[in-house]
Amino acid sequence: MKVDGTHYRTIWLAEDGKTVEIIDQTKFPHQFEIARLETVGDAAHAIADMLVRGAPLIGATAAYGIALAMRADPTNENFEAAFTELAATRPTAINLRWALERMRTIVLHAPEDHRAKTAYAAAAAVCDEDVEICAAIGRNGLKLIEAIAAKKADGEPVNILTHCNAGWLATVDWGTATAPIYMAHDGGIDVHVWVDETRPRNQGAALTAWELGKHGVPHTVVVDNVGGHLMQHGLVDLVITGTDRTTARGDVCNKIGTYLKALAAADNGVPFYVALPSPTIDFAIFDGVAEVPIEQRGADEVDRMTGTTADGRIETVSIVAPGSAIANYAFDVTPARLVTGLITERGVLAADQAAIAEAFPERAGRAAE
Amino acid sequence: MKVDGTHYRTIWLAEDGKTVEIIDQTKFPHQFEIARLETVGDAAHAIADMLVRGAPLIGATAAYGIALAMRADPTNENFEAAFTELAATRPTAINLRWALERMRTIVLHAPEDHRAKTAYAAAAAVCDEDVEICAAIGRNGLKLIEAIAAKKADGEPVNILTHCNAGWLATVDWGTATAPIYMAHDGGIDVHVWVDETRPRNQGAALTAWELGKHGVPHTVVVDNVGGHLMQHGLVDLVITGTDRTTARGDVCNKIGTYLKALAAADNGVPFYVALPSPTIDFAIFDGVAEVPIEQRGADEVDRMTGTTADGRIETVSIVAPGSAIANYAFDVTPARLVTGLITERGVLAADQAAIAEAFPERAGRAAE
Repeated sequence: MKVDGTHYRTIWLAEDGKTVEIIDQTKFPHQFEIARLETVGDAAHAIADMLVRGAPLIGATAAYGIALAMRADPTNENFEAAFTELAATRPTAINLRWALERMRTIVLHAPEDHRAKTAYAAAAAVCDEDVEICAAIGRNGLKLIEAIAAKKADGEPVNILTHCNAGWLATVDWGTATAPIYMAHDGGIDVHVWVDETRPRNQGAALTAWELGKHGVPHTVVVDNVGGHLMQHGLVDLVITGTDRTTARGDVCNKIGTYLKALAAADNGVPFYVALPSPTIDFAIFDGVAEVPIEQRGADEVDRMTGTTADGRIETVSIVAPGSAIANYAFDVTPARLVTGLITERGVLAADQAAIAEAFPERAGRAAE
Repeated sequence: MKVDGTHYRTIWLAEDGKTVEIIDQTKFPHQFEIARLETVGDAAHAIADMLVRGAPLIGATAAYGIALAMRADPTNENFEAAFTELAATRPTAINLRWALERMRTIVLHAPEDHRAKTAYAAAAAVCDEDVEICAAIGRNGLKLIEAIAAKKADGEPVNILTHCNAGWLATVDWGTATAPIYMAHDGGIDVHVWVDETRPRNQGAALTAWELGKHGVPHTVVVDNVGGHLMQHGLVDLVITGTDRTTARGDVCNKIGTYLKALAAADNGVPFYVALPSPTIDFAIFDGVAEVPIEQRGADEVDRMTGTTADGRIETVSIVAPGSAIANYAFDVTPARLVTGLITERGVLAADQAAIAEAFPERAGRAAE
């Protein structure tokens, strides 16, 4: 998407045709900096230290990491070393493993003197495919926004609430939850986005607000407590969130707090949609609340806030009463009964087992065997 | 309640019998400091700059402010000047006005040479009555906790979730939502409190966590997004919040985000109780969502976080993407249908018009005329 008028992806090949460039997301929202990846070690560092984040972007970075490794030394031995180094960066990221396995299949079939070229092409394909999936999600979700816009009086925006960052910064371009929003905005529909701050890591206030602002999409940041009030007063037409993992029946495991917004949407008759690339559907799991283990992360994410002082310094401050225990659950599960629909690259599906299986028979069938 | 073993109220007469002392709540949670009020100007400053906050404590401070004024100059003229100065500090605080009117009735009936003594006694009575109301709320709510504790296995705590600060720091002692919790803890019941951080002003993480910790009540701070997940997994036995305003049918206007917790409680069969002194019931209002105007506050409360750096400096940092709009709704309304009961000084009431009117016939009848 655009940053102050210039189109960017989150990862791209530099003009030299060798170096990989990324947006350094650790500097958000106060600085926009490009980082250069010249070695597999640079790529591993970028993933491990969260210069890149979001499942699709992590996968794309890992794929380019293999390409950087093959450029330096195209032997099987070096491939395996690179694979191991990259796989260890974020052990629970499913896309990371998937991208690496795919690179193995493609790259190791090539003769050594073709491996660098093959790997760069395969990494580019990983990126392009992610862009196409997100664009398809965008086209499918756009119809939902168009339908609401058609009922609005002139000058009345379509108000969309989102939680966390399921934006283009988490993918290669477009994003998932944001793809329909960007397409609506680019197509001249008057949209306004309520951006949940998304404590504890503030991805909404720092990332979603940044990317919407840079692309020129009107939006307002609110703390996570506000969504219910907005819905009670008719100020939200539609909720769209992303998801980290969706079960075979459509339960949605997403950033902590998503469930509370789904409850408020149901209580106020507001449609609650979840945008997802189908690889995040886990056909082996059915009951999300019972079966999805919820990661607990460190207390510092809750206690410490980093930001900019009035005179421009970056500082980190502690905000919780000293000595108090802190718990930090990273995700929650929204039961399918609260989900109006799933916006996928193959269309908008009901959040139920039959509809999901019908849209993805090749994967649902295999899981059922 | 206790601070490291010593009993405190939030406001008290100093040993000289003239000066009023308060806990300076602007320093929380990192410093515990006592401030001395020697003049009506000191009292007005303490209210306006939020050294004291919470409706009952604001009322008590205003009452002592009149006493300080009468000690300096007991004329009618000075009374009215003090009244005006104090009333202007927090124009929307109902208790402030109520306490001042009560002081007027009592003090101006006394001859000038008795007014200081009369005013000090009346201010002390305002404080003592608040303590008694909170203690009665505590005794009534304690029964709910005892009933849950009776069903628990040995060593299993009663888990109570609370939002914002309806603790003793907002009153003279005991608090409202916390009164049953302190009584249960002091009575040997094993309680554990989930403390919602309560963005944007973080009264949970800064105040509730502080006061529970200082009194020795086990508790864990969580971000506001977490409560639904906890309830889905059986980790909350009971929710108790405070309220700023309760309607004649039991709709509850409280800190923003309370409604989301009430939805999660209803969805998971967790009892949701609201503790309140009956003066906060507004018998003239029925439908809270439609009739209670919701205050919108400044964007800085959302954007700026104040805390302590690793090396002990107090810093304020900006955390929202620069240029993004911010909305800051301070309260929301939880419909009575989501409220299991109201814990008042006259008992635990159903959140419906008949039950409330029956418990407070003298006020309900007057409002209906």
